[in-house]
Amino acid sequence: MSSPLRLGIAGLGTVGIGVVKILQTHADLIETRVGRRIEIAAVSANSRSKKRGADISAYGWEDDPVELGRRDDIDVVLELMGGENGAAKALVETALKRGKDVVTANKALLAHHGNDLAALADANGRVLRFEAAVAGGIPVIKALTEGLAGNAVKRVMGVMNGTCNYILTRMEATGQGYNVLFDECARLGYLEADPNLDVGGIDAGHKLSLLSAIAFGTRVDFDAVVLQGIQSISLDDIRLARDMGYSIKLLGVAQMTGRGLEQRMTPCLVPETHPLGQLDGGTNMVVIEGDSVGQIVLRGAGAGEGPTASAVMGDVMDIARGFRLPVFGQPAATLAAAAPAVVSAGAPWYLRMTLLDKPGALAKIATALGESGISIDRMRQYSHEGADAPVLIVTHKASSDDITEALARFAGTGVLVGEPVALRIEEV
Amino acid sequence: MSSPLRLGIAGLGTVGIGVVKILQTHADLIETRVGRRIEIAAVSANSRSKKRGADISAYGWEDDPVELGRRDDIDVVLELMGGENGAAKALVETALKRGKDVVTANKALLAHHGNDLAALADANGRVLRFEAAVAGGIPVIKALTEGLAGNAVKRVMGVMNGTCNYILTRMEATGQGYNVLFDECARLGYLEADPNLDVGGIDAGHKLSLLSAIAFGTRVDFDAVVLQGIQSISLDDIRLARDMGYSIKLLGVAQMTGRGLEQRMTPCLVPETHPLGQLDGGTNMVVIEGDSVGQIVLRGAGAGEGPTASAVMGDVMDIARGFRLPVFGQPAATLAAAAPAVVSAGAPWYLRMTLLDKPGALAKIATALGESGISIDRMRQYSHEGADAPVLIVTHKASSDDITEALARFAGTGVLVGEPVALRIEEV
Repeated sequence: MSSPLRLGIAGLGTVGIGVVKILQTHADLIETRVGRRIEIAAVSANSRSKKRGADISAYGWEDDPVELGRRDDIDVVLELMGGENGAAKALVETALKRGKDVVTANKALLAHHGNDLAALADANGRVLRFEAAVAGGIPVIKALTEGLAGNAVKRVMGVMNGTCNYILTRMEATGQGYNVLFDECARLGYLEADPNLDVGGIDAGHKLSLLSAIAFGTRVDFDAVVLQGIQSISLDDIRLARDMGYSIKLLGVAQMTGRGLEQRMTPCLVPETHPLGQLDGGTNMVVIEGDSVGQIVLRGAGAGEGPTASAVMGDVMDIARGFRLPVFGQPAATLAAAAPAVVSAGAPWYLRMTLLDKPGALAKIATALGESGISIDRMRQYSHEGADAPVLIVTHKASSDDITEALARFAGTGVLVGEPVALRIEEV
Repeated sequence: MSSPLRLGIAGLGTVGIGVVKILQTHADLIETRVGRRIEIAAVSANSRSKKRGADISAYGWEDDPVELGRRDDIDVVLELMGGENGAAKALVETALKRGKDVVTANKALLAHHGNDLAALADANGRVLRFEAAVAGGIPVIKALTEGLAGNAVKRVMGVMNGTCNYILTRMEATGQGYNVLFDECARLGYLEADPNLDVGGIDAGHKLSLLSAIAFGTRVDFDAVVLQGIQSISLDDIRLARDMGYSIKLLGVAQMTGRGLEQRMTPCLVPETHPLGQLDGGTNMVVIEGDSVGQIVLRGAGAGEGPTASAVMGDVMDIARGFRLPVFGQPAATLAAAAPAVVSAGAPWYLRMTLLDKPGALAKIATALGESGISIDRMRQYSHEGADAPVLIVTHKASSDDITEALARFAGTGVLVGEPVALRIEEV
């Protein structure tokens, strides 16, 4: 294996330039570790002359990134452009068909087309790797696909959108509301062009759908991910949750249940003493629970030039070493079409609402809960100067169905002021 | 790759039986993931008839484990007996020479003979894997060797002895002293036959020496690990540290400095807000800092049947998939003989001492620090009913050399009662 591995890099944004820098800085280190040179044969980006943090003049150039998939002097294509369709998809397909391995950081592409691309990779005997697509620099795809491969996975959880975690953490630290911090993120450039990808949970949901496929040997099914963003989380919720020993996180959870594959990316309460509850700022965390290994927690930077490029390089170096495995850890043809679980597994829930200050209001709510089969673990009614009473209820275990039913009954009581907030308390 | 991979398992204790159970329970899952059957051809243990948690009657048997290394029906030998010499070493050597790959959980063996065994593996074109030897179920060897291979590692840290962490955590939680909890661990079976392997930091030091070799591309040099156990940590230290926002952990640190490779396994103060400071009980944690990826934190069970067997299976499944790489991530011949750093890099230090209650005592201590080139960041003198005054000093950055000099000067002041305690505050 002494012939060099020749790369074609499509996309010279943050990630692409990060990869170029590592290859330029650590060429000897990399060669020592993988036993061969790794070279850049050609690159493609929007502009060849744009000033970047690295000199690309020594590399071949393609105006059309898809051409990288056709060049004979390229062994591995790095798709670092992004976008779930268009050139990214065309390039990956072309490269695989032309017998090239592919490394991508593109979660949207794989969340939407992962099954087809995995089948295409298998059919052409190629590998398609995507460590950088999930949780940035954390080698979680590798941990799940390889290191923990002897486990039947019981549950995968993750905080995988740094922007959301930054907003939630800063709300508590500064006492500012969601809108103020959303604007701060916009100013700081922390938001995607379509902010709903971040705060609506879509980006993190993409990532979860990829982890699910590996963990449970199922076809990627992003459409089945129950998505709820963080837009409705108030400062009150964060403070009341803390008051009871919890943090609120945009938490992805995937688990196989008797009712099918449960995948959700929703704001949840987690114990403040668990690593998930202690995760501040833009950091990511993935928790993997296996039947043998128990709970493994992985933490690191979820975005940024260095961390994402590090993940891409891990994939590239595996390929250079000759490591080959199917896209989702088993052949695409063996991935099961799991039925999505419509109702989530039972858990305690946090319910916050404001009630009219009149006799019997609380009794009506308690009755509605009882009629929905939900029992109350803890309840707090806060003192109130005005006319309306804020009430917080923590239930015993209830399914999402029961909670939905209870919320409908609440609406019929006529004692609610505004909408109640219902958040699952994930038992970790 | 449809032929089965045939294993020989030496040692049917906790780890060995755990591996047998996984292979029996998850045979189909494993085959789907790696594309071939993984079978147990033969086993060896002290007694064939001993009652165990798994049925081994279908497998071949060897009274002498080393014979597993000679059998023609075995592709991979699993050395799960332990011991740094004797049968374990003979088996690994025999197996490698006979063209078999080896998976081991034996940190003592590799800490003492890793360089020779890596050279032997290279010479015979074999792999020798040891994920289970470091931090139990956490796939840290894989993360460092593969996932983060594109990084120049800046520092590796780890809490890698669950028994020590259990003792330190329980001291704080229960208010009991070291000796009481040491006895509790002995009763619970948490201690090695030679307890000094645990509480003296030797076991954790073995693990650190293996991480160092991978992280810095250096020859394994366990003898250069500065070892200090937890025996001298008092309840007072734990409480005073907490009072200032720190936890005390038996922390391994490896980093390449201008003065050579620094490897130490010593009790340190770490901020209680960092994941290291929040690590309770028998759990392990490894922190890897790379020049691109930043700080990656990995957490999980450091011991036990399931976690350790999970790690062994990860290695076995990699071999089944055809993944091959050198023992420490690069050829043994390329591992550098790094000079050990005699003096550790500068850090703040925690100094606790008791002074005679007489005028000028504290001034003498402060003078001794100044003469050693150490400046004081914070000092607390606690109120005292008796005659002697407990004093706590946090210094600004100082080298271990400076601290040693200061302690010698303290001894000459004549104002100390008993021995002072000096603990490094690791900046994380």
